Amino acid sequence: MGRKISGPGFFLGKKAEFNFGAGQSDLAPPREILKVKVPKSFLYGEIRGQKELVKKVASLHNVDEAGVVITNGASEAIDLIFSVLLNKNDKVLLTKPYYYSYPFLVKLNKGQTIYTELREDHIDLGDLEKKISGCKAFLLNSPANPTGSVEEKEKIREIQKICKKNNAFLVFDEVYSELTYEKGHYSPKEENVISVNSFSKTFALCGLRVGYLYTENKEIAKEVIEHKTHKSMNTSTLSQLVALNALKVPRQYIEKNKKIFKERRDIIYDGLKELGLKCAKPEGAFYILPHVKNPQKVVEDLYKENVILYNGKWFGAPNRIRLSYAIDKEKIKDGLKKIKKYLEVEKCK
Amino acid sequence: MGRKISGPGFFLGKKAEFNFGAGQSDLAPPREILKVKVPKSFLYGEIRGQKELVKKVASLHNVDEAGVVITNGASEAIDLIFSVLLNKNDKVLLTKPYYYSYPFLVKLNKGQTIYTELREDHIDLGDLEKKISGCKAFLLNSPANPTGSVEEKEKIREIQKICKKNNAFLVFDEVYSELTYEKGHYSPKEENVISVNSFSKTFALCGLRVGYLYTENKEIAKEVIEHKTHKSMNTSTLSQLVALNALKVPRQYIEKNKKIFKERRDIIYDGLKELGLKCAKPEGAFYILPHVKNPQKVVEDLYKENVILYNGKWFGAPNRIRLSYAIDKEKIKDGLKKIKKYLEVEKCK
Repeated sequence: MGRKISGPGFFLGKKAEFNFGAGQSDLAPPREILKVKVPKSFLYGEIRGQKELVKKVASLHNVDEAGVVITNGASEAIDLIFSVLLNKNDKVLLTKPYYYSYPFLVKLNKGQTIYTELREDHIDLGDLEKKISGCKAFLLNSPANPTGSVEEKEKIREIQKICKKNNAFLVFDEVYSELTYEKGHYSPKEENVISVNSFSKTFALCGLRVGYLYTENKEIAKEVIEHKTHKSMNTSTLSQLVALNALKVPRQYIEKNKKIFKERRDIIYDGLKELGLKCAKPEGAFYILPHVKNPQKVVEDLYKENVILYNGKWFGAPNRIRLSYAIDKEKIKDGLKKIKKYLEVEKCK
Repeated sequence: MGRKISGPGFFLGKKAEFNFGAGQSDLAPPREILKVKVPKSFLYGEIRGQKELVKKVASLHNVDEAGVVITNGASEAIDLIFSVLLNKNDKVLLTKPYYYSYPFLVKLNKGQTIYTELREDHIDLGDLEKKISGCKAFLLNSPANPTGSVEEKEKIREIQKICKKNNAFLVFDEVYSELTYEKGHYSPKEENVISVNSFSKTFALCGLRVGYLYTENKEIAKEVIEHKTHKSMNTSTLSQLVALNALKVPRQYIEKNKKIFKERRDIIYDGLKELGLKCAKPEGAFYILPHVKNPQKVVEDLYKENVILYNGKWFGAPNRIRLSYAIDKEKIKDGLKKIKKYLEVEKCK
């Protein structure tokens, strides 16, 4: 019995033999970070971030340093962006399905949420154009959590233009930018675009909480710094040292991990298809979102069987479940067997 | 020429021979922190904070672990508290003078600010009682920035009761609790009190950004965790390791630093009195707030003379300047000589 499973928070700190819940890489962070030593002094750092890290991030994304702000993970970056952009009841357009923190962050910052339904898990430009009018911003996530979909360069350009024409900002959450399996990732650099990225997914450093935003719009960056001055001040100077060292790792680290995730993606996609579940082939990130009947029952029953998976409803995706494949491939195979057995008995396909 | 000096932000990253600006200790953090090693894995931590640190903090303040949340410094703790407590246009009572981020944090979280003027730099209970009615919370800071005043135990109890009678929360920012020179510090534990503390001032760890809140009110702590889940997730697990090690330092570290600050307090207070400036003797923290004529001119002129001090106006204290004495005592003495020379010529006493 016990508490009803009502959101991802239920599973925080919970363990299971087959954990398809976690939104974090199980791979090791770069060994380069172990070289970091705790400094002897901890004076306040610069609110925008430590000089050397800001410089590296600016050069990585080919933007001016004045457009970069280092934050407590991508979450704080998005919170700060909405804190700066939104006045009372300002509308923010989100996709549906969405990453589950987005609606909260809009509401906590006085905004209203409007949704554009994805079509086959991708942006429907026609619907976007209809809904964006009067919105302060559109929040795009590609590669996307929970769908695993990736938008193409031309489409992202189109999205940016539609936003611009409607005086809306494009807030681009690209934390999975280094996990794309076929299409490449594309970041537009325009005055109306604010991009959000992080060290969490690329370098397996979720608990370190170092993310950042970058933008061509220096005015926005300045306002973000002003808000951050009051809300949290600098991001941990020690965490920033670790992040800086992670950036020194050869590109090979990223490519190797991507290969591992691609193999897992193939295993889980093929496996779920074999089970007879309808689902799209993920193009990036490490999630897959198959359709099932009665997902809440599936989630609750399978948790009793030592399998954690998430109800799509928590991400605005009813009649679907979200599986993360940030676990070992043998675990994926064995977990799928368990799920298969369950679905055959319960007929939830 | 150049930009007008319009707030503390102007001086960020600026250096001067005599820097009476900085709100951070110049002393060394405990050596114990140097033992911390960067871990090999950085999975998400618990939103409320890492178990061992939460346990230590709970025992330090004699509260239940369920009432503790580790945050990105005291700033984030206050931001989260207001995020949870305030609905649109809810009123928050602040003292005047105040720490300069308070009004921003109230406004960023949809609230309105109301002020109670301090009387001889201390809470005026009569005025508090008049103003608190209809307020969601009163934000108390003791030892206080910028006044250096400390409220006595009996008075803090009275303040808590006045808040309770008026259904208001007492948000108690006690980050300078380990820097009191005569009166001791007192923390009430009641359902309507949320206390905020930090490792920044006690252990000279400002840049590390580890603070926390603790309360008897577990419902509030739960809501804070919910908001933090979306706004920034866990506080850096590495920074928390450093904070945990700082807590292992013998109490002697704190007492030794307090003695150093008390000596500096005496030097700067006697010195400013000798200059003929009206000011109260600080009872805690490391600030002093003398009265001057034309403080903006004093701040601008003296900056050209290599002396940084802050205009009291930025803290709601017109006709005063704030000096931090978190600098070496010889610097204090020499800086005072410079200030003396200037004031004699300019007649700004």
